[in-house]
Amino acid sequence: MSQEERVFSYRPIGVIRSPFRDLVGMPIQPGGARGVPGAVEVFEEFRAGLADLEGFSRIVLLYPFHRSAGWSPLVTPFLDDRERGVFATRAPRRPNAIGISIVRLEEVRDGELAIEDVDILDGTPLFDIKPYVPAFDSFPDERSGWLTGCDEKLASVRSDRRFQGPSGGP
Amino acid sequence: MSQEERVFSYRPIGVIRSPFRDLVGMPIQPGGARGVPGAVEVFEEFRAGLADLEGFSRIVLLYPFHRSAGWSPLVTPFLDDRERGVFATRAPRRPNAIGISIVRLEEVRDGELAIEDVDILDGTPLFDIKPYVPAFDSFPDERSGWLTGCDEKLASVRSDRRFQGPSGGP
Repeated sequence: MSQEERVFSYRPIGVIRSPFRDLVGMPIQPGGARGVPGAVEVFEEFRAGLADLEGFSRIVLLYPFHRSAGWSPLVTPFLDDRERGVFATRAPRRPNAIGISIVRLEEVRDGELAIEDVDILDGTPLFDIKPYVPAFDSFPDERSGWLTGCDEKLASVRSDRRFQGPSGGP
Repeated sequence: MSQEERVFSYRPIGVIRSPFRDLVGMPIQPGGARGVPGAVEVFEEFRAGLADLEGFSRIVLLYPFHRSAGWSPLVTPFLDDRERGVFATRAPRRPNAIGISIVRLEEVRDGELAIEDVDILDGTPLFDIKPYVPAFDSFPDERSGWLTGCDEKLASVRSDRRFQGPSGGP
């Protein structure tokens, strides 16, 4: 079997809870969602794996963009008004629609995580939790290409329907 | 169908090339792999999506830990000598064995990316490329739990066979 044909399959280990029940009007990135509270419910069989997590103040969540469908090589991202290569964006309509969000970890209790800075749709299945480690993950001085200076826009821009799947809304 | 039963499937969009052909003796995290060169070969049908990527000096690679098998709720990570909850580690033997590496992007040419700081096994399938954006991704002051002070160990610690799949390997 060639590399192109190989398929990898994943089952959720939990569910992400947030105030966002519609793809429209969501913040762009955790940077646009400061203080927005949410939760991660981890299914029972995986809860023992949460040991030691409370020592970290941020965590990386991996999840499917489960409401996105299809992909295009070029997309017009929420933070710009022209097309960009999809791999130069964080847009959900990508060939393998897997999202990452770096959220604040407030508390770990009974298999549920209290989190903040949540830019994720309510009910999103959870694939993985990793600790955010500044020594591994923080590179403050890298070049940001077309996203240079996006910091100011983050606070005000919200999502619209452009990356929604064909099934329409909730 | 319950959330637990839902399955999400992904096919590689490319292959990651590196000097590491064995799971043993690899660097831990890109922080232990400074200057290690590698490449990303993107399959032809996805190459148009690389537009605008060259403006970014780091990229996030998502990939399956394709040589890891099974998982345990507690693991003894390479950087410690006692067990930790798997979600408080970056160990490959996790329920959904998906890895993320933040590597330097040196050049984009003809569907191939020249990269550095590569801590990935040669031949690893590629799921996704995202731009690393300090405004989204860099949090230098977060707490690192049991990994506090790991920076010094990173340069010297190398992998061993502990997370290898049952098939053994070349």
